[in-house]
Amino acid sequence: MAVSQRKVANSAIRRLSLYFRVLEELAHEGEATASSEILASRTGTTAAQVRKDLSQFGSFGKRGLGYEVEPLMKELRGLLGLSRRWKVALVGAGRLGAALIEYPHFREHGFEFVAAFDSDPAKIGRRLHSLTIQPSADLAQTLASSGVEIAILTVPAAAAQEVADAVVAAGVRGILNFAPVRIRVPEGVSVNGVNMTVELEALTFALRLGAGTDRPRKE
Amino acid sequence: MAVSQRKVANSAIRRLSLYFRVLEELAHEGEATASSEILASRTGTTAAQVRKDLSQFGSFGKRGLGYEVEPLMKELRGLLGLSRRWKVALVGAGRLGAALIEYPHFREHGFEFVAAFDSDPAKIGRRLHSLTIQPSADLAQTLASSGVEIAILTVPAAAAQEVADAVVAAGVRGILNFAPVRIRVPEGVSVNGVNMTVELEALTFALRLGAGTDRPRKE
Repeated sequence: MAVSQRKVANSAIRRLSLYFRVLEELAHEGEATASSEILASRTGTTAAQVRKDLSQFGSFGKRGLGYEVEPLMKELRGLLGLSRRWKVALVGAGRLGAALIEYPHFREHGFEFVAAFDSDPAKIGRRLHSLTIQPSADLAQTLASSGVEIAILTVPAAAAQEVADAVVAAGVRGILNFAPVRIRVPEGVSVNGVNMTVELEALTFALRLGAGTDRPRKE
Repeated sequence: MAVSQRKVANSAIRRLSLYFRVLEELAHEGEATASSEILASRTGTTAAQVRKDLSQFGSFGKRGLGYEVEPLMKELRGLLGLSRRWKVALVGAGRLGAALIEYPHFREHGFEFVAAFDSDPAKIGRRLHSLTIQPSADLAQTLASSGVEIAILTVPAAAAQEVADAVVAAGVRGILNFAPVRIRVPEGVSVNGVNMTVELEALTFALRLGAGTDRPRKE
Protein backbone atom coordinates (compact mmCIF):
# COMPACT_ATOMS: atom_id res chain seq x y z
CA MET A 1 0.00 0.00 0.00
CA ALA A 2 1.30 3.42 -0.86
CA VAL A 3 2.03 5.65 2.08
CA SER A 4 0.19 8.91 1.75
CA GLN A 5 1.92 12.23 1.61
CA ARG A 6 -0.11 13.56 4.54
CA LYS A 7 0.35 10.72 6.97
CA VAL A 8 3.64 11.78 8.45
CA ALA A 9 2.86 15.43 9.00
CA ASN A 10 0.34 14.99 11.72
CA SER A 11 -0.42 17.78 14.08
CA ALA A 12 0.99 16.07 17.19
CA ILE A 13 4.46 15.77 15.67
CA ARG A 14 4.26 19.40 14.54
CA ARG A 15 3.43 20.42 18.10
CA LEU A 16 6.40 18.45 19.47
CA SER A 17 8.64 20.31 17.00
CA LEU A 18 7.20 23.60 18.15
CA TYR A 19 7.62 22.74 21.85
CA PHE A 20 11.24 21.94 21.06
CA ARG A 21 11.65 25.38 19.40
CA VAL A 22 10.21 27.08 22.50
CA LEU A 23 12.45 25.08 24.83
CA GLU A 24 15.45 26.21 22.77
CA GLU A 25 14.27 29.80 23.19
CA LEU A 26 13.78 29.33 26.93
CA ALA A 27 17.21 27.72 27.34
CA HIS A 28 18.66 30.67 25.43
CA GLU A 29 16.81 33.00 27.82
CA GLY A 30 18.39 31.16 30.75
CA GLU A 31 15.20 29.50 32.02
CA ALA A 32 15.59 26.17 33.82
CA THR A 33 11.89 25.26 33.88
CA ALA A 34 9.00 25.66 31.46
CA SER A 35 5.34 25.69 32.46
CA SER A 36 2.77 24.02 30.24
CA GLU A 37 1.20 27.49 30.02
CA ILE A 38 4.28 29.08 28.45
CA LEU A 39 4.74 26.16 26.07
CA ALA A 40 1.08 26.55 25.13
CA SER A 41 1.05 30.30 24.69
CA ARG A 42 4.21 30.31 22.57
CA THR A 43 2.95 27.57 20.27
CA GLY A 44 -0.70 28.57 20.02
CA THR A 45 -2.23 25.62 21.80
CA THR A 46 -3.67 25.01 25.27
CA ALA A 47 -1.84 24.01 28.44
CA ALA A 48 -4.03 20.91 28.62
CA GLN A 49 -2.92 19.92 25.11
CA VAL A 50 0.74 20.40 26.06
CA ARG A 51 0.34 18.19 29.12
CA LYS A 52 -1.50 15.56 27.09
CA ASP A 53 1.10 15.56 24.29
CA LEU A 54 4.04 15.31 26.64
CA SER A 55 2.50 12.73 29.00
CA GLN A 56 1.99 10.53 25.95
CA PHE A 57 5.77 10.36 25.65
CA GLY A 58 6.38 9.80 29.32
CA SER A 59 7.20 13.37 30.33
CA PHE A 60 5.32 14.70 33.31
CA GLY A 61 5.75 18.23 34.59
CA LYS A 62 5.63 18.95 38.30
CA ARG A 63 2.57 20.80 39.50
CA GLY A 64 3.51 24.42 40.13
CA LEU A 65 7.01 23.92 38.73
CA GLY A 66 6.47 22.73 35.18
CA TYR A 67 8.97 20.85 33.07
CA GLU A 68 12.73 20.95 33.41
CA VAL A 69 13.98 22.56 30.20
CA GLU A 70 17.19 20.62 29.56
CA PRO A 71 15.89 17.07 30.20
CA LEU A 72 12.74 17.74 28.17
CA MET A 73 14.82 19.15 25.29
CA LYS A 74 16.99 16.06 25.36
CA GLU A 75 13.96 13.82 25.28
CA LEU A 76 12.30 15.69 22.42
CA ARG A 77 15.57 15.82 20.51
CA GLY A 78 15.71 12.02 20.62
CA LEU A 79 12.04 11.63 19.83
CA LEU A 80 12.23 13.94 16.81
CA GLY A 81 15.34 12.22 15.52
CA LEU A 82 17.52 15.30 16.15
CA SER A 83 20.15 13.66 18.33
CA ARG A 84 21.96 12.45 15.24
CA ARG A 85 22.91 13.89 11.84
CA TRP A 86 20.94 13.19 8.68
CA LYS A 87 22.45 13.25 5.22
CA VAL A 88 20.20 15.14 2.84
CA ALA A 89 20.22 15.47 -0.93
CA LEU A 90 18.57 18.27 -2.87
CA VAL A 91 16.97 17.38 -6.17
CA GLY A 92 16.14 20.47 -8.21
CA ALA A 93 18.64 23.30 -7.97
CA GLY A 94 16.31 26.18 -8.79
CA ARG A 95 15.63 29.23 -6.64
CA LEU A 96 13.69 27.35 -3.98
CA GLY A 97 16.35 24.66 -3.78
CA ALA A 98 19.06 27.29 -3.46
CA ALA A 99 17.08 29.02 -0.70
CA LEU A 100 16.70 25.76 1.22
CA ILE A 101 20.33 24.74 0.93
CA GLU A 102 21.38 28.06 2.47
CA TYR A 103 18.86 27.87 5.29
CA PRO A 104 21.08 27.94 8.41
CA HIS A 105 18.56 26.24 10.71
CA PHE A 106 18.82 22.95 8.84
CA ARG A 107 22.48 22.48 9.67
CA GLU A 108 21.93 23.62 13.25
CA HIS A 109 19.34 20.86 13.66
CA GLY A 110 21.47 18.09 12.22
CA PHE A 111 20.47 18.16 8.56
CA GLU A 112 23.51 18.15 6.30
CA PHE A 113 23.25 18.63 2.54
CA VAL A 114 25.72 16.27 0.90
CA ALA A 115 24.57 16.37 -2.73
CA ALA A 116 22.58 18.54 -5.13
CA PHE A 117 21.17 17.48 -8.49
CA ASP A 118 19.57 19.12 -11.47
CA SER A 119 18.61 17.94 -14.94
CA ASP A 120 19.42 21.27 -16.60
CA PRO A 121 22.81 20.99 -18.40
CA ALA A 122 23.34 24.74 -17.83
CA LYS A 123 23.29 24.21 -14.05
CA ILE A 124 25.38 21.05 -13.84
CA GLY A 125 28.90 21.70 -12.54
CA ARG A 126 27.93 25.05 -10.99
CA ARG A 127 28.40 25.63 -7.27
CA LEU A 128 25.43 25.75 -4.94
CA HIS A 129 26.53 26.80 -1.48
CA SER A 130 29.31 24.29 -0.73
CA LEU A 131 28.17 21.70 -3.29
CA THR A 132 28.68 21.14 -6.99
CA ILE A 133 25.44 20.51 -8.88
CA GLN A 134 25.45 17.00 -10.31
CA PRO A 135 23.41 15.62 -13.20
CA SER A 136 20.16 13.92 -12.19
CA ALA A 137 21.31 10.99 -14.32
CA ASP A 138 23.94 10.25 -11.62
CA LEU A 139 21.39 10.37 -8.84
CA ALA A 140 21.03 6.64 -8.19
CA GLN A 141 24.76 5.98 -8.03
CA THR A 142 25.67 9.03 -5.94
CA LEU A 143 22.85 8.62 -3.43
CA ALA A 144 23.55 4.96 -2.87
CA SER A 145 27.26 5.52 -2.30
CA SER A 146 26.85 8.57 -0.04
CA GLY A 147 24.33 7.08 2.40
CA VAL A 148 21.73 9.80 1.87
CA GLU A 149 18.53 9.07 3.83
CA ILE A 150 16.44 12.15 3.06
CA ALA A 151 15.80 13.83 -0.29
CA ILE A 152 14.29 17.28 -0.67
CA LEU A 153 12.45 17.56 -3.98
CA THR A 154 12.19 21.03 -5.50
CA VAL A 155 11.46 19.90 -9.03
CA PRO A 156 8.52 20.77 -11.31
CA ALA A 157 5.30 18.83 -10.67
CA ALA A 158 5.69 16.88 -13.89
CA ALA A 159 9.08 15.49 -12.82
CA ALA A 160 8.28 14.76 -9.17
CA GLN A 161 7.08 11.15 -9.39
CA GLU A 162 9.98 10.06 -11.59
CA VAL A 163 12.49 11.70 -9.25
CA ALA A 164 10.78 10.15 -6.22
CA ASP A 165 10.99 6.70 -7.80
CA ALA A 166 14.70 7.22 -8.47
CA VAL A 167 15.59 8.40 -4.96
CA VAL A 168 13.59 5.57 -3.38
CA ALA A 169 15.34 3.06 -5.64
CA ALA A 170 18.64 4.53 -4.39
CA GLY A 171 17.73 3.76 -0.78
CA VAL A 172 16.30 7.09 0.39
CA ARG A 173 13.69 6.54 3.12
CA GLY A 174 12.35 10.07 3.61
CA ILE A 175 11.20 12.68 1.10
CA LEU A 176 10.29 16.31 1.70
CA ASN A 177 8.30 17.21 -1.40
CA PHE A 178 7.86 20.83 -2.49
CA ALA A 179 6.50 19.94 -5.93
CA PRO A 180 2.78 20.81 -6.01
CA VAL A 181 1.72 17.25 -6.71
CA ARG A 182 1.17 14.12 -4.64
CA ILE A 183 3.84 11.48 -5.05
CA ARG A 184 3.42 7.80 -4.34
CA VAL A 185 6.07 5.78 -2.55
CA PRO A 186 6.33 2.18 -1.41
CA GLU A 187 5.60 1.17 2.14
CA GLY A 188 8.53 1.92 4.41
CA VAL A 189 9.24 5.31 2.83
CA SER A 190 7.91 8.52 4.40
CA VAL A 191 6.83 11.58 2.47
CA ASN A 192 5.98 15.01 3.79
CA GLY A 193 4.60 17.51 1.32
CA VAL A 194 4.84 21.28 1.61
CA ASN A 195 2.29 22.94 -0.62
CA MET A 196 2.64 26.71 -0.64
CA THR A 197 -0.87 27.19 -2.01
CA VAL A 198 -2.38 25.20 0.85
CA GLU A 199 -0.51 27.43 3.30
CA LEU A 200 -1.90 30.56 1.67
CA GLU A 201 -5.40 29.11 1.59
CA ALA A 202 -5.32 28.54 5.35
CA LEU A 203 -4.96 32.33 5.51
CA THR A 204 -7.63 33.26 3.00
CA PHE A 205 -10.06 30.90 4.69
CA ALA A 206 -9.57 32.86 7.92
CA LEU A 207 -9.62 36.25 6.17
CA ARG A 208 -12.84 35.39 4.43
CA LEU A 209 -14.59 34.44 7.69
CA GLY A 210 -13.06 37.25 9.68
CA ALA A 211 -9.73 36.65 11.27
CA GLY A 212 -8.95 35.08 14.60
CA THR A 213 -10.87 32.00 13.55
CA ASP A 214 -9.21 28.84 14.66
CA ARG A 215 -11.57 26.30 13.23
CA PRO A 216 -13.93 26.11 10.29
CA ARG A 217 -17.49 27.15 11.04
CA LYS A 218 -20.59 25.86 9.44
CA GLU A 219 -22.34 28.66 7.60
CA MET B 1 -5.09 38.84 22.90
CA ALA B 2 -2.51 38.01 20.30
CA VAL B 3 -3.56 35.53 17.65
CA SER B 4 -1.18 32.63 17.54
CA GLN B 5 0.74 31.65 14.48
CA ARG B 6 -0.61 28.12 14.56
CA LYS B 7 -4.27 28.84 14.98
CA VAL B 8 -5.15 29.40 11.36
CA ALA B 9 -3.39 26.41 9.89
CA ASN B 10 -5.60 23.78 11.38
CA SER B 11 -5.81 20.37 9.86
CA ALA B 12 -9.43 20.66 8.72
CA ILE B 13 -8.69 23.67 6.52
CA ARG B 14 -5.64 21.90 5.13
CA ARG B 15 -7.80 18.94 4.24
CA LEU B 16 -10.32 21.20 2.46
CA SER B 17 -7.44 22.64 0.43
CA LEU B 18 -6.31 19.16 -0.47
CA TYR B 19 -9.83 18.04 -1.43
CA PHE B 20 -9.98 21.07 -3.69
CA ARG B 21 -6.67 20.03 -5.32
CA VAL B 22 -8.02 16.53 -5.96
CA LEU B 23 -11.28 17.89 -7.40
CA GLU B 24 -9.20 20.02 -9.79
CA GLU B 25 -7.34 16.88 -10.84
CA LEU B 26 -10.59 14.94 -11.27
CA ALA B 27 -12.16 17.74 -13.32
CA HIS B 28 -9.03 17.74 -15.46
CA GLU B 29 -9.41 13.98 -15.89
CA GLY B 30 -12.99 14.52 -17.06
CA GLU B 31 -14.71 13.04 -14.00
CA ALA B 32 -18.15 14.39 -13.11
CA THR B 33 -18.38 12.78 -9.69
CA ALA B 34 -15.97 12.07 -6.85
CA SER B 35 -16.44 9.37 -4.23
CA SER B 36 -15.41 10.04 -0.65
CA GLU B 37 -13.06 7.06 -1.13
CA ILE B 38 -11.14 8.72 -3.98
CA LEU B 39 -10.96 12.04 -2.12
CA ALA B 40 -9.66 10.11 0.89
CA SER B 41 -7.10 8.00 -0.91
CA ARG B 42 -5.66 10.94 -2.83
CA THR B 43 -5.32 13.08 0.29
CA GLY B 44 -4.22 10.44 2.75
CA THR B 45 -7.26 10.46 5.00
CA THR B 46 -10.27 8.19 5.46
CA ALA B 47 -13.57 8.25 3.57
CA ALA B 48 -15.34 8.80 6.90
CA GLN B 49 -13.19 11.89 7.54
CA VAL B 50 -14.00 13.26 4.06
CA ARG B 51 -17.74 12.82 4.64
CA LYS B 52 -17.49 14.41 8.08
CA ASP B 53 -15.46 17.38 6.81
CA LEU B 54 -17.76 18.05 3.88
CA SER B 55 -21.02 17.53 5.77
CA GLN B 56 -19.81 20.17 8.22
CA PHE B 57 -20.01 22.65 5.36
CA GLY B 58 -23.34 21.46 4.09
CA SER B 59 -22.13 19.20 1.28
CA PHE B 60 -23.58 15.74 1.23
CA GLY B 61 -22.58 13.14 -1.33
CA LYS B 62 -25.13 10.72 -2.68
CA ARG B 63 -24.75 7.14 -1.55
CA GLY B 64 -23.19 5.13 -4.36
CA LEU B 65 -22.66 8.24 -6.49
CA GLY B 66 -20.45 10.47 -4.40
CA TYR B 67 -20.07 14.22 -4.81
CA GLU B 68 -20.63 16.19 -7.98
CA VAL B 69 -17.21 17.57 -8.89
CA GLU B 70 -18.10 20.99 -10.28
CA PRO B 71 -20.59 22.10 -7.59
CA LEU B 72 -18.28 20.90 -4.81
CA MET B 73 -15.33 22.71 -6.36
CA LYS B 74 -17.39 25.87 -6.54
CA GLU B 75 -18.37 25.54 -2.91
CA LEU B 76 -14.83 24.87 -1.71
CA ARG B 77 -13.51 27.69 -3.88
CA GLY B 78 -15.82 30.09 -2.06
CA LEU B 79 -15.11 28.59 1.33
CA LEU B 80 -11.34 28.81 0.88
CA GLY B 81 -11.58 32.38 -0.37
CA LEU B 82 -10.45 31.44 -3.88
CA SER B 83 -13.40 32.86 -5.79
CA ARG B 84 -11.77 36.29 -5.68
CA ARG B 85 -8.30 37.73 -6.21
CA TRP B 86 -5.99 38.61 -3.31
CA LYS B 87 -3.30 41.27 -3.53
CA VAL B 88 -0.10 40.01 -1.99
CA ALA B 89 3.13 41.78 -1.04
CA LEU B 90 6.48 40.09 -0.60
CA VAL B 91 8.73 41.41 2.14
CA GLY B 92 12.26 40.07 1.81
CA ALA B 93 13.53 39.67 -1.73
CA GLY B 94 16.10 36.93 -1.10
CA ARG B 95 16.25 33.54 -2.78
CA LEU B 96 13.18 32.17 -1.05
CA GLY B 97 11.18 35.31 -1.84
CA ALA B 98 12.26 35.12 -5.46
CA ALA B 99 11.24 31.46 -5.60
CA LEU B 100 7.80 32.24 -4.19
CA ILE B 101 7.11 35.17 -6.47
CA GLU B 102 7.75 32.94 -9.49
CA TYR B 103 5.60 30.10 -8.20
CA PRO B 104 2.96 29.77 -10.96
CA HIS B 105 0.32 28.13 -8.77
CA PHE B 106 -0.15 31.28 -6.71
CA ARG B 107 -1.40 33.29 -9.66
CA GLU B 108 -3.56 30.40 -10.88
CA HIS B 109 -5.29 30.36 -7.50
CA GLY B 110 -5.97 34.07 -7.31
CA PHE B 111 -2.90 35.33 -5.46
CA GLU B 112 -1.35 38.31 -7.21
CA PHE B 113 1.96 39.82 -6.14
CA VAL B 114 1.67 43.60 -6.42
CA ALA B 115 4.74 44.74 -4.46
CA ALA B 116 8.12 43.46 -3.27
CA PHE B 117 10.28 45.02 -0.58
CA ASP B 118 13.78 44.61 0.76
CA SER B 119 15.94 46.57 3.16
CA ASP B 120 19.18 45.86 1.28
CA PRO B 121 20.16 48.97 -0.75
CA ALA B 122 21.88 46.68 -3.28
CA LYS B 123 18.55 45.02 -4.11
CA ILE B 124 16.33 48.09 -4.20
CA GLY B 125 15.37 49.10 -7.73
CA ARG B 126 16.19 45.67 -9.17
CA ARG B 127 13.52 43.65 -10.96
CA LEU B 128 11.98 40.63 -9.34
CA HIS B 129 9.73 38.82 -11.79
CA SER B 130 7.41 41.62 -12.95
CA LEU B 131 8.02 43.87 -9.94
CA THR B 132 10.62 46.43 -8.94
CA ILE B 133 12.03 45.88 -5.46
CA GLN B 134 11.10 48.78 -3.22
CA PRO B 135 12.76 49.93 -0.01
CA SER B 136 11.21 48.54 3.17
CA ALA B 137 11.06 52.12 4.41
CA ASP B 138 8.26 52.74 1.87
CA LEU B 139 6.33 49.72 3.03
CA ALA B 140 3.61 51.47 5.03
CA GLN B 141 2.78 54.00 2.34
CA THR B 142 2.86 51.57 -0.59
CA LEU B 143 0.85 48.85 1.12
CA ALA B 144 -1.86 51.22 2.29
CA SER B 145 -2.27 52.78 -1.16
CA SER B 146 -2.24 49.48 -3.06
CA GLY B 147 -4.86 47.66 -1.00
CA VAL B 148 -2.61 44.72 -0.16
CA GLU B 149 -4.33 42.26 2.19
CA ILE B 150 -1.72 39.52 2.51
CA ALA B 151 2.00 39.85 3.16
CA ILE B 152 4.49 37.02 2.69
CA LEU B 153 7.46 37.47 5.01
CA THR B 154 10.76 35.98 3.87
CA VAL B 155 12.98 38.06 6.12
CA PRO B 156 15.56 36.96 8.71
CA ALA B 157 14.17 35.93 12.09
CA ALA B 158 15.55 39.05 13.77
CA ALA B 159 13.58 41.35 11.45
CA ALA B 160 10.30 39.44 11.37
CA GLN B 161 8.44 41.06 14.26
CA GLU B 162 9.31 44.60 13.17
CA VAL B 163 8.20 43.85 9.60
CA ALA B 164 5.01 42.22 10.86
CA ASP B 165 4.20 45.29 12.94
CA ALA B 166 4.74 47.52 9.90
CA VAL B 167 2.56 45.49 7.54
CA VAL B 168 -0.22 45.23 10.13
CA ALA B 169 -0.06 48.98 10.70
CA ALA B 170 -0.46 49.38 6.92
CA GLY B 171 -3.73 47.44 6.98
CA VAL B 172 -2.57 43.93 6.06
CA ARG B 173 -4.87 41.32 7.61
CA GLY B 174 -3.06 38.10 6.71
CA ILE B 175 0.61 37.12 7.03
CA LEU B 176 2.34 34.03 5.69
CA ASN B 177 5.53 33.90 7.75
CA PHE B 178 8.58 31.98 6.54
CA ALA B 179 10.92 33.50 9.14
CA PRO B 180 11.83 30.80 11.68
CA VAL B 181 10.35 32.72 14.59
CA ARG B 182 6.90 33.27 16.03
CA ILE B 183 5.44 36.68 15.39
CA ARG B 184 2.72 38.35 17.41
CA VAL B 185 -0.12 40.23 15.80
CA PRO B 186 -3.19 42.01 17.13
CA GLU B 187 -6.58 40.34 17.16
CA GLY B 188 -8.19 40.46 13.75
CA VAL B 189 -4.98 39.60 11.92
CA SER B 190 -4.23 36.02 10.84
CA VAL B 191 -0.77 34.50 10.70
CA ASN B 192 0.27 31.21 9.19
CA GLY B 193 3.85 30.12 9.76
CA VAL B 194 5.81 27.79 7.51
CA ASN B 195 8.80 26.40 9.35
CA MET B 196 11.00 24.28 7.12
CA THR B 197 12.70 22.63 10.08
CA VAL B 198 9.36 21.48 11.49
CA GLU B 199 8.53 19.94 8.11
CA LEU B 200 11.82 18.03 8.09
CA GLU B 201 11.32 16.90 11.68
CA ALA B 202 7.97 15.36 10.78
CA LEU B 203 10.04 13.14 8.49
CA THR B 204 12.84 12.27 10.89
CA PHE B 205 10.29 11.42 13.56
CA ALA B 206 8.81 8.83 11.20
CA LEU B 207 12.21 7.60 9.98
CA ARG B 208 13.38 7.09 13.53
CA LEU B 209 10.32 4.99 14.42
CA GLY B 210 10.23 3.14 11.15
CA ALA B 211 8.27 4.66 8.33
CA GLY B 212 4.61 4.41 7.56
CA THR B 213 3.82 5.70 11.02
CA ASP B 214 0.91 8.05 11.07
CA ARG B 215 0.83 8.97 14.73
CA PRO B 216 3.31 9.24 17.55
CA ARG B 217 3.66 6.14 19.67
CA LYS B 218 4.45 5.94 23.29
CA GLU B 219 7.74 4.18 23.81
